[in-house]
Amino acid sequence: MTTYHCELAWLGGTEAEPDVVLEIGDDGTFLSVTTSGPTGGATFLPGLTLPGLANAHSHAFHRALRSRTHAGTGDFWSWREQMYALAARLTPESYLELARATFAEMVQSGITCVGEFHYLHHAEGGVGYTDENAMGDSLIEAARQAGLRLTLLDTCYLQGGITAELSEIQRRFSDGDALSWATRVSALDPVDTDRVRLGAAIHSVRAVDPASMAIVAAWAADRGAPLHAHVSEQPAENAACIEAYGCTPTELLARRGVLGDRFTAVHATHVTPHDVELLGAARASVCLCPTTERDLADGIGPARALRAGGAGLTLGTDSHAVIDLFEEMRAVELDERLASGDRGIHRPVDLLTAATAAGHASLGWPEAGRLATGAPADFVTIGLDSVRTAGSPPSAAVAAAVFAAGATDVRRVVVAGEVIVEDGHHVRLDVAGELSRTISRLTDR
Amino acid sequence: MTTYHCELAWLGGTEAEPDVVLEIGDDGTFLSVTTSGPTGGATFLPGLTLPGLANAHSHAFHRALRSRTHAGTGDFWSWREQMYALAARLTPESYLELARATFAEMVQSGITCVGEFHYLHHAEGGVGYTDENAMGDSLIEAARQAGLRLTLLDTCYLQGGITAELSEIQRRFSDGDALSWATRVSALDPVDTDRVRLGAAIHSVRAVDPASMAIVAAWAADRGAPLHAHVSEQPAENAACIEAYGCTPTELLARRGVLGDRFTAVHATHVTPHDVELLGAARASVCLCPTTERDLADGIGPARALRAGGAGLTLGTDSHAVIDLFEEMRAVELDERLASGDRGIHRPVDLLTAATAAGHASLGWPEAGRLATGAPADFVTIGLDSVRTAGSPPSAAVAAAVFAAGATDVRRVVVAGEVIVEDGHHVRLDVAGELSRTISRLTDR
Repeated sequence: MTTYHCELAWLGGTEAEPDVVLEIGDDGTFLSVTTSGPTGGATFLPGLTLPGLANAHSHAFHRALRSRTHAGTGDFWSWREQMYALAARLTPESYLELARATFAEMVQSGITCVGEFHYLHHAEGGVGYTDENAMGDSLIEAARQAGLRLTLLDTCYLQGGITAELSEIQRRFSDGDALSWATRVSALDPVDTDRVRLGAAIHSVRAVDPASMAIVAAWAADRGAPLHAHVSEQPAENAACIEAYGCTPTELLARRGVLGDRFTAVHATHVTPHDVELLGAARASVCLCPTTERDLADGIGPARALRAGGAGLTLGTDSHAVIDLFEEMRAVELDERLASGDRGIHRPVDLLTAATAAGHASLGWPEAGRLATGAPADFVTIGLDSVRTAGSPPSAAVAAAVFAAGATDVRRVVVAGEVIVEDGHHVRLDVAGELSRTISRLTDR
Repeated sequence: MTTYHCELAWLGGTEAEPDVVLEIGDDGTFLSVTTSGPTGGATFLPGLTLPGLANAHSHAFHRALRSRTHAGTGDFWSWREQMYALAARLTPESYLELARATFAEMVQSGITCVGEFHYLHHAEGGVGYTDENAMGDSLIEAARQAGLRLTLLDTCYLQGGITAELSEIQRRFSDGDALSWATRVSALDPVDTDRVRLGAAIHSVRAVDPASMAIVAAWAADRGAPLHAHVSEQPAENAACIEAYGCTPTELLARRGVLGDRFTAVHATHVTPHDVELLGAARASVCLCPTTERDLADGIGPARALRAGGAGLTLGTDSHAVIDLFEEMRAVELDERLASGDRGIHRPVDLLTAATAAGHASLGWPEAGRLATGAPADFVTIGLDSVRTAGSPPSAAVAAAVFAAGATDVRRVVVAGEVIVEDGHHVRLDVAGELSRTISRLTDR
């Protein structure tokens, strides 16, 4: 048993609690979480301790684009060309290295669980690797080595657009048809463990036809697995969907049985009031990725309306322009302030819930993302003594976490009782060095 | 003479130059800036070296509000009540401490020159201190101790609103009339030195009547001093101005001879196309404070149109919700992406120019903010080896500074040849400790 004494810890309320004691069993869960105060033999954790953060939407390989595409002109679609050029170079070996470094950056920023929206399945020309899940296996191994939990959201991608053939690079994404997708993914099934879980994704209404959507949804329903899809990130997607099917992407997904409480709509930036109703009524999750939405000039989605309508909000770093869920939390609120002229739309506890319990639930870890007896012993401690956070009283510690702190304030990260980050550094990996080396190898040729 | 060898340095072009040598004389200016490559006896600076950053709009005491007001509901006006409650507590002694810590946080983030928009002049009830410039003197001393250059923008504030009396707290801001303001400020004149310069500010069209504006503008013109004003931060200000004077705030300032190339409009969020024309034709500066504008739900100003029209853009951390000019730089671009749907509106070099040369010029330091022979030897070196910046090639170093780096990546800051920050830490002050202690003393009573 390991015991920690937290100076302050967030147990789900509007303020942090002082002197919280966390007892962790050898099985990697919390034996107890109490406000009983200091106890002998406990390791003291100054600052604010939060549940481990869940990054509900990631494309790990996009990390290699940081600084290379972000100053770019053009729009989402021209950015996508640059992203595809990188994707074309990846192999199972190089993707393991890049994903390990990217996931390690995530852990060092307080993320203890990532949902990897994975569609780069096959070798050049769409030819399967000898191990047809070689790329997925690389991601699983990368997460294991980096020390965080993974939900592999294996993504179905079948067409280049509603009426478009696959391009050369997109052939690497496609299994040919949805049943072949399901067969391949089912071979991953034994992967479900204490640290890795499996989910499904429909890339988008552009990349998956309606009949195939229903197959993917049925596969996920059979297993009670999470099901994610990119939804209405771009107005052009809406226009194409309406033209082809006479309804919005959300309406199309609803008709095909995709919506539900295991479903996450990623972005949902350009949803209609009716879409908001559908997502809310289904108790679906909506994954906001505001730093990516800023970078790609996507626009500001109706987060307030979605939450009010019954959808659960989660957060993702998506394209990894930055990897900092503290920045994502406040960006949800601040961007909606810019759009609305109102302040205090989302309370700090709502944003923390999005980054913790709600994110975990949307990735198929409903027991995680909380400091509670029986929950997985995943937590992150941030310093309240940096130049960014200094001056915040205990009563404002929760607000400081959301509005003042950053990834750089993370001092300790524990996953399943195991210390992965100490004094702000990954205990196993030279994260910046690995990022630098792996990205150089991928790009300098 | 001190010599530095920069791995990479930004000399104003679209890419950073390798192997830049900076020679600094005993007078605190650059004797030479060359791309001649390594030289014996030089101190090597790994990473990217930039000119010192200019924070063109600061209210130092707002730093004590961080985390306390940022989760708040309401709008700009309800936030202002909380800000006033803090202002009411400040004395010359406590303001020296708070401003020193705040300015030190700025230096540690790469800021080598700050424009302090200073209106908290007098004691309770508007009674003058024995030294009528006691508060301004505290700010000057705070900057000296923190180690950065200061432009004290002494602010005229005469009325609570266009048709409103001063409130109790606002009486501390007022000199009674503009001539009394000018008399008091003129007593500060000998302050102009190598490290401190004096400028004027008109708080806003709310707080200064048109006749008084002209007096302040004449005072600044006589001395060739910078002149700043809050302009159209809020729609309510525009509405009140139009009702009272039949024109916008910018038009009113133009009529009263305020505009010109020494003038800076702070915010300019809700300016009209005609206002944009006026500011551009006058070659005025516009100081954007995007993290504050996010926090206060002010909206997204027309930065692209202002720049295209001829105005110079500068940046300020204003209310210090965060102190990070890297975040401000990218926020200008990213927020306008959200509003417009376009990417690449402002090039990284445009944003770096706003944060350096343009900011310095707007504060009355036209010779500063550039790595060039004869310029003040102010510079900041950021690491390209953190988890945030790792993986950026030299060709993308400028983009990495703007889109990936943060204040926490600052390794070394030099002002007038003197090292103020080394290995990311202020060499004289325990910045976080001072922030914590001074803010506790001001707020926990």
